[in-house]
Amino acid sequence: MSRERQEKKEWDVRASTLARNTHNTIRNIVECLKVEPNPQKELIALSIGDPTIFGNLNPPEQVIQAIKDSADLHTSRGYVAAKGLLEAREAVAEYSAHQGDISPNDVFLSSGCSHAIELAITALADSGQNILVPRPGFMIYRTLAHGLGIELKYYNLLPEEQWKVDLDDLESQINDNTAAIVVINPSNPCGSVYDKEHLSEILDIASRNCVPIIADEIYEHFVFSGHTYTAISSISKDVPVLTCGGLTKRFLVPGWRMGWVILHDRHNILEKEVRKGLNNLSTRILGPSTLIQRALPSILKYTPQSFFDEVLLFIENQAKLAYDELRRAPGLKPIMPQGAMYMMIELKMALFPEFKNEFQFVEQLVTEQSVFCLPGKCFEYPNYMRIVLTVPEEILREACQRITLFCTEHVTYENRKEKENAD
Amino acid sequence: MSRERQEKKEWDVRASTLARNTHNTIRNIVECLKVEPNPQKELIALSIGDPTIFGNLNPPEQVIQAIKDSADLHTSRGYVAAKGLLEAREAVAEYSAHQGDISPNDVFLSSGCSHAIELAITALADSGQNILVPRPGFMIYRTLAHGLGIELKYYNLLPEEQWKVDLDDLESQINDNTAAIVVINPSNPCGSVYDKEHLSEILDIASRNCVPIIADEIYEHFVFSGHTYTAISSISKDVPVLTCGGLTKRFLVPGWRMGWVILHDRHNILEKEVRKGLNNLSTRILGPSTLIQRALPSILKYTPQSFFDEVLLFIENQAKLAYDELRRAPGLKPIMPQGAMYMMIELKMALFPEFKNEFQFVEQLVTEQSVFCLPGKCFEYPNYMRIVLTVPEEILREACQRITLFCTEHVTYENRKEKENAD
Ligand SMILES: Cc1ncc(COP(=O)(O)O)c(C=O)c1O
Ligand SMILES: Cc1ncc(COP(=O)(O)O)c(C=O)c1O
Repeated sequence: MSRERQEKKEWDVRASTLARNTHNTIRNIVECLKVEPNPQKELIALSIGDPTIFGNLNPPEQVIQAIKDSADLHTSRGYVAAKGLLEAREAVAEYSAHQGDISPNDVFLSSGCSHAIELAITALADSGQNILVPRPGFMIYRTLAHGLGIELKYYNLLPEEQWKVDLDDLESQINDNTAAIVVINPSNPCGSVYDKEHLSEILDIASRNCVPIIADEIYEHFVFSGHTYTAISSISKDVPVLTCGGLTKRFLVPGWRMGWVILHDRHNILEKEVRKGLNNLSTRILGPSTLIQRALPSILKYTPQSFFDEVLLFIENQAKLAYDELRRAPGLKPIMPQGAMYMMIELKMALFPEFKNEFQFVEQLVTEQSVFCLPGKCFEYPNYMRIVLTVPEEILREACQRITLFCTEHVTYENRKEKENAD
Repeated sequence: MSRERQEKKEWDVRASTLARNTHNTIRNIVECLKVEPNPQKELIALSIGDPTIFGNLNPPEQVIQAIKDSADLHTSRGYVAAKGLLEAREAVAEYSAHQGDISPNDVFLSSGCSHAIELAITALADSGQNILVPRPGFMIYRTLAHGLGIELKYYNLLPEEQWKVDLDDLESQINDNTAAIVVINPSNPCGSVYDKEHLSEILDIASRNCVPIIADEIYEHFVFSGHTYTAISSISKDVPVLTCGGLTKRFLVPGWRMGWVILHDRHNILEKEVRKGLNNLSTRILGPSTLIQRALPSILKYTPQSFFDEVLLFIENQAKLAYDELRRAPGLKPIMPQGAMYMMIELKMALFPEFKNEFQFVEQLVTEQSVFCLPGKCFEYPNYMRIVLTVPEEILREACQRITLFCTEHVTYENRKEKENAD
């Protein structure tokens, strides 16, 4: 025994690398913001991607009843298979038939879509490898990958082309350590919806480079009129696709934590190791509550189309409202979304010289107008802010008016002219 | 661009190390067993630690009603704080007051106790470090740690001393890479319950070596008459304890996936990094369903004591029944549990020379008598088998009779005498 070991030890308990390096970008950024609302005006939070907060959007009665019926079942309380109850996986396979030919065996139920993404990433990527994610993009990927030593590489989306993927940039980011390409469609935060042709272009790159795709389609079917949603898996010829989804957004129950990964793999490329790997991973903490799994077949089968149509129409109208209001606000350039439930707004920072960056802009917007939008940095995209469209109509209108007023009060054309002259 | 990159690549998608090295020991062992029951006798599975399977044990009506009430609440559908809803954490803190002085801030809600254990392990241990776990012991620790490169080291429990910890062995296993000592009390699979004095001895070792404790107390309060349950955290002076628990066993709802970690740390040893680490980790996939979180205060406060008393009395009587039956079976030595819901039974393998090991014994027991018990290897403990006590009384009695018959038919005293003579 070494001398050290004989001395009285001292307490020095450290956190693991994983624990230290797991960060929730949005949460961290929001916590650092100085957001003290104007006491004269009620706070309007356009920041949180939770459509249930204001109480204006609710799941249909059938869905609630399915849960209550499940609670009465003696079989809704026990353990089920680690990847999920067979009946529930059958229901997901059927509900997801638009994605391709799915057997219940290809479905892995998870505790929310975040857990689905965790399963997909940890099945494919090792420490030292990288995954490609869109910029701007939802940052759960960073939260999940970074602590495990999996590197994130960003490929650019093009705001002037309805946030299509910069294909050259995407392909140039791929290297021998690339374990997967993440495609978020429809997109948070952009609200973009890719057509078949564009999805094929992405698939071609994946195919050429033999990299599987993680398709985050938690906003599947959230597509405004005039656009069509295509599941990327449905048009993949050879590229294996792990599609992540769930009840979260479409059924307006984010807190229920009901998600799934679906494995699409026509050429059995994932049979070698990855399917087994997913099976292994699903035994770690098991999936969603049996209470909800038992209700899932009824939820997926009997929710009326009219419910989905109404929610979607509401969001589309909200998008139009916000777009119409905000494109008239000086210094702003909203980008009309094609789906999902968000809108990205470019801030012409040169017209707001008093703000060093979009953080200061959103902070001051809270301070003066009590409207809180997320700074683009939350999505690795400075000079933008994101708003959520699911708040009640009157509140969204009021928020847009306050934002417009704020811009009017702060826009500084002089400075721009001076700057232009000086250039 | 290198020549290789220009050639057409080939698909070769591997699973990550984590995915490949995540194994569910029980599942793997059970899958390898040849368990074809005797078609003349109905199968009795004494193998699965799920008290709900047979329908004889059900949560009280209040608990089911609390879920239904929660389903009606518009606030049971949205996201809540990553570590859990404040009201739910307050309720857990109050319910767990026997563990020590707890603030809601010390409570992290999780998706079942397995997820609580994952949070605790991944908060404390890095790849290359080790955690000490009891042998025999529940193997979720292996499932969760191994894939992350966290080594498991086993310390022995002593069957002849009611499965107390071999303290010398425990201390000898500790080295500079030991991140935590896991104490499972009451124990799965042993059913042992440690008294204050023994828990103090374990704490002394942890204190002397400055190693925190992960206390798996998912069977808290499952203690038979004549024994007392003490939360190890309640008597720790300096050792930080991360206690893992949940609704799973006591409320008979394992499938609901409602668990928690509680941080006990009188000397603020975990303030340096670990508390923050746990907060970080809880943002990965968020915790249990909001539906259940909202119901938690009512579940924890209003479940009548009579419910717990009845379940416990039932299990204790089952333990007595099984013990009385099986100690008369030739070649078996059951060890009477003091709590939890299992019993370990030693197989005197020398008396069953036709079976090479306990696997062959349990396989043949299924083939002939259609009774399925878990081989000790599932808990890293050969020559034993574990039975579950929560099945209906008549079924347990029938199972014990069949096991006894089986032993009577297979026990071989001759061989033993020969062997003794030969020795
Ligand atoms: C693109 C995207 N993926 C995944 C998620 C996570 O969904 P869940 O709440 O089901 O974990 C979200 C949530 O906002 C999201 O926007
Ligand atoms: C000792 C022990 N810890 C943890 C667990 C996991 O509990 P949960 O089902 O809540 O994940 C079990 C389940 O059998 C157990 O026996």
